[in-house]
Amino acid sequence: MATIGVLLSGCGVLDGSEIHEATLTLLYLNKAGAKVVCLAPEMTVEAMDHGAKKPMGERRNVRVEAARIARGPVADAATASVADLDALILPGGFGAAKNLCDFAEKGGIGTVFPSVAALIKAMHAAKKPIGAICIAPAVLALALGEHHPRLTIGNDPGTAQAVEAAGGVHVACPVDGIVVDETNRLVTTPAYMLGPGIADIALGIEKLVAAVLEMAENRQPLDL
Amino acid sequence: MATIGVLLSGCGVLDGSEIHEATLTLLYLNKAGAKVVCLAPEMTVEAMDHGAKKPMGERRNVRVEAARIARGPVADAATASVADLDALILPGGFGAAKNLCDFAEKGGIGTVFPSVAALIKAMHAAKKPIGAICIAPAVLALALGEHHPRLTIGNDPGTAQAVEAAGGVHVACPVDGIVVDETNRLVTTPAYMLGPGIADIALGIEKLVAAVLEMAENRQPLDL
Repeated sequence: MATIGVLLSGCGVLDGSEIHEATLTLLYLNKAGAKVVCLAPEMTVEAMDHGAKKPMGERRNVRVEAARIARGPVADAATASVADLDALILPGGFGAAKNLCDFAEKGGIGTVFPSVAALIKAMHAAKKPIGAICIAPAVLALALGEHHPRLTIGNDPGTAQAVEAAGGVHVACPVDGIVVDETNRLVTTPAYMLGPGIADIALGIEKLVAAVLEMAENRQPLDL
Repeated sequence: MATIGVLLSGCGVLDGSEIHEATLTLLYLNKAGAKVVCLAPEMTVEAMDHGAKKPMGERRNVRVEAARIARGPVADAATASVADLDALILPGGFGAAKNLCDFAEKGGIGTVFPSVAALIKAMHAAKKPIGAICIAPAVLALALGEHHPRLTIGNDPGTAQAVEAAGGVHVACPVDGIVVDETNRLVTTPAYMLGPGIADIALGIEKLVAAVLEMAENRQPLDL
């Protein structure tokens, strides 16, 4: 049974992990019999009112809020042991672009939160697959730009350009598809970057989970 | 295309709607092509830390937090128009038993929050189907006890006894099953009352959504 880390960034599309994307990731991992370890960085962020779509004037802890999706404790990403994980998946949501890194503000010249960067670089170095959903591929572009990762955020030109500025190679992809970078062992899907509905994004996320699990079970040396 | 109300009670199993149950409800409704209207009562409640599983010492607005699951504004249940809804579904989570009613504290002698009670009674009177997941059937037992609704919360004896004290008729049911009350037009499934995993609860929720939609499309007079 593979053990898969799911790296969350809060609970809610505007200030954390997109709930549907995270939940569907957990669904397909559980269906496949994988063991899940939920992780999140230790930080507080400005909470957003998801009805009014504006700041609430309070800060919340990303790891504590992520526990709502996990239904229990979420480990600090800084304490994650790469040796214990067979793969890592990052659901999307603005939390991926605002909390895991500062892509939302700085685009292709942004940086990744230290514990998240360390985890992604260590997984990559260990030749373990990483999946990223929606806007989360931007985190991979920033963390692994020197390796020129092939990935997708759907088809938004501005976002694709910023991903390429970070060193990534953007590939357009429909919501029911995935982009696989065999060399860097990455799998990405656009999800709510395209939408429009939860049934649409479920198609790509199901394929992403299957591809990540297949890669995790057939670990081959990187051809770098 | 049917329009289905999804009655949320916050965002997170310990103080609101169980996120996986709510998300899977939205998934299967969207797959079936149904239109969804998310609703929640207007109230504030004590927020729970879902990692430490203890109160956070702050109150949050149920309707505002529910918008995280809905990915946008959630209407006040008090403003819901029964004429505009073909059916109603209540996901579970402690929010169903603590916010939508006070079943968690008072069991079979509890009462239902006014706007929620009014909506459920009006849907029932209009012969429109209602689905309830996990602990949410307890809300139906309290609101519709005089009609002796047949429903399930799985197999927990104490909870089943409290449901029966409210006037309900409890039927034991596995996690991948549903209980259908044709007379009262209710469909229930145990979900995380039994679990254990999200792939398990998905089976019952998929059947519940299908049964509710079928009932909504074949509206027949109640035989009361």
